Amino acid sequence: MQPRDLSAHAPYVPGRGTEEVARELGMDPEDLTKLSSNENPHGPSPKAVAAIEDAAPTVSVYPKTAHTDLTDALADKWGLESEQVWVSPGADGSIDYLTRAMLNPGDEILEPTPGFSYYSMSARYHHGDAAQYEVSKADGFEQSADRVLDAYDGGRMVYLTTPHNPTGSVVPRDELVELAESVADHTLLVVDEAYAEFADEPSAIDLLAEYDNIAVMRTFSKAYGLAGLRVGYACVPESWADAYARVNTPFAASELACRAALAALDDEQHVEKTVETARWARDYLREELDVPTWESAGNFVLAEVGDATAVSQAAQREGVIVRDCGSFGLPECIRISCGTEAQTEHAVEVLNRVISEVPTA
Amino acid sequence: MQPRDLSAHAPYVPGRGTEEVARELGMDPEDLTKLSSNENPHGPSPKAVAAIEDAAPTVSVYPKTAHTDLTDALADKWGLESEQVWVSPGADGSIDYLTRAMLNPGDEILEPTPGFSYYSMSARYHHGDAAQYEVSKADGFEQSADRVLDAYDGGRMVYLTTPHNPTGSVVPRDELVELAESVADHTLLVVDEAYAEFADEPSAIDLLAEYDNIAVMRTFSKAYGLAGLRVGYACVPESWADAYARVNTPFAASELACRAALAALDDEQHVEKTVETARWARDYLREELDVPTWESAGNFVLAEVGDATAVSQAAQREGVIVRDCGSFGLPECIRISCGTEAQTEHAVEVLNRVISEVPTA
Repeated sequence: MQPRDLSAHAPYVPGRGTEEVARELGMDPEDLTKLSSNENPHGPSPKAVAAIEDAAPTVSVYPKTAHTDLTDALADKWGLESEQVWVSPGADGSIDYLTRAMLNPGDEILEPTPGFSYYSMSARYHHGDAAQYEVSKADGFEQSADRVLDAYDGGRMVYLTTPHNPTGSVVPRDELVELAESVADHTLLVVDEAYAEFADEPSAIDLLAEYDNIAVMRTFSKAYGLAGLRVGYACVPESWADAYARVNTPFAASELACRAALAALDDEQHVEKTVETARWARDYLREELDVPTWESAGNFVLAEVGDATAVSQAAQREGVIVRDCGSFGLPECIRISCGTEAQTEHAVEVLNRVISEVPTA
Repeated sequence: MQPRDLSAHAPYVPGRGTEEVARELGMDPEDLTKLSSNENPHGPSPKAVAAIEDAAPTVSVYPKTAHTDLTDALADKWGLESEQVWVSPGADGSIDYLTRAMLNPGDEILEPTPGFSYYSMSARYHHGDAAQYEVSKADGFEQSADRVLDAYDGGRMVYLTTPHNPTGSVVPRDELVELAESVADHTLLVVDEAYAEFADEPSAIDLLAEYDNIAVMRTFSKAYGLAGLRVGYACVPESWADAYARVNTPFAASELACRAALAALDDEQHVEKTVETARWARDYLREELDVPTWESAGNFVLAEVGDATAVSQAAQREGVIVRDCGSFGLPECIRISCGTEAQTEHAVEVLNRVISEVPTA
């Protein structure tokens, strides 16, 4: 007995974890600097940690009010109706819920390449197809309505990532508006704002007041420092009223995750500190690295190093883990997450040394 | 812009939470006894609580090794290959992963009615259909291969729940073997053992050594007391080797959940105490309730009370929350979860009083 044909389903390639690398290389995890997964180098908010500790003795109980409270708090934050806020287990959960709401078998999504692989994974999981528009190095990774519309063929969902991972480029607001006004009536624009706290641009969430074909995704994994808990949300058109209960997985955003997210929301100072560190670090990386880099609105910088695999493996042996962008289709680039000041300075020192020693591919 | 037609997607009806009821009735949550969601009345293992507290400051990091370690520990516990253990966010996650592995659009699952609504929700989310076999009150809710095969029409997945929720009946092992030998080559039997720790029957997991058309689902939400964290797993045929990475959602079982599960696995004493309490409570409920009940191998008892809505609402006003089984298609029955000794005695006292006062429908 075998599963159905899953050959179109490509497995996800995650950034490498500290313990994983430490075990492999026989090193102490303490000696490793992990700048491969765009995590918050300041850790979670102390308020979130306290909320987790408070809730720990009650995890035998199914989630309920924390989910409702978080939904209401987010609706309040963004001036939306509660029905428009779809709390989910990480951004991946939001993608699954939106996919379930939108795709019939054979329907297509349009996604950026390079880009986040779960957009198409979720589409395929739900028997849809995926087409790509390029966020192209030749154009300095610039994103525009024209580039998307050139590839657009009437698909049901169009994903926009702003800031874009792994390049750091943004979709300017006027381009987003142009897209909302240009796509067919049956097409939903999904704006993935996982890194939006690090950007100067305002959120696209206020566009939901004017356009009913936009959904915006947000996560607590990045600026809010809760990647290990899995909680995110999508903001959907007001006219979708009761669709959430028809596409979600009950209890999937755990009680603990929702409580931690509520506490983290309440600690603006922690987010501000995190954003300030990321802005400093991306400037530092761009100034100090001896290789070409691109302007980034995220908490990471893309750098062209020649042979990304050779450079990232050499850096890893020196205790610095960065992301080899080969899996993004950029085998000449690495992505360095913004660390603390000490981490970032150490990473630059190691990377510059390693880059000078590794022969260019 | 509207979602696709979601009218076939029925929203899930959860048990009611303590805080939710307390808010609605203006009561103190402390004054409520919640016996509506088959939770562990002893709470999570103290070892799991300690693991959560330990991990709280590191939740900014994406999950990785805890997931691998939990997978390996479970494979070791059950004598399986690690590739056969699919760790997931709750049993719902396992259902989604198995559905993705098995169903093409239009393919059918066969599920018990009454039964767990997420079997068909997940099938519909993935563009499959659902048919039902009855676990019938007329037969004392007995489960047998014949009853399943009578309704079986060559569907791709057949769900068996043992112990069965909400009735407490089991699928005897010889009936399971008969089913494994009777269904078509393309059909997977999915044995949901969410409540198996409370039963006398051995797990069906060892049948995976003989039959390659069986998957078994387990959860940490019940006997292990981690419902609020979302972690479960499916054990799949050995021949499915690399399918997991092609159907799962990366990181979906959170780092914190996996660490807590590892710690809970290591606390057999807590599970034993939990099982002992449940066995005492279900005997007590059956002996002391003044209405018909059914033998249960789970941590709950089904009772026939006449008008379940009236009885459960009256009990709720007295501070005891039980499950109105109307949403299971049994509007004359309530399901009472096994509480601590004090909770169970209190519930019986209140329920007997309420039942005597509420006019029978």
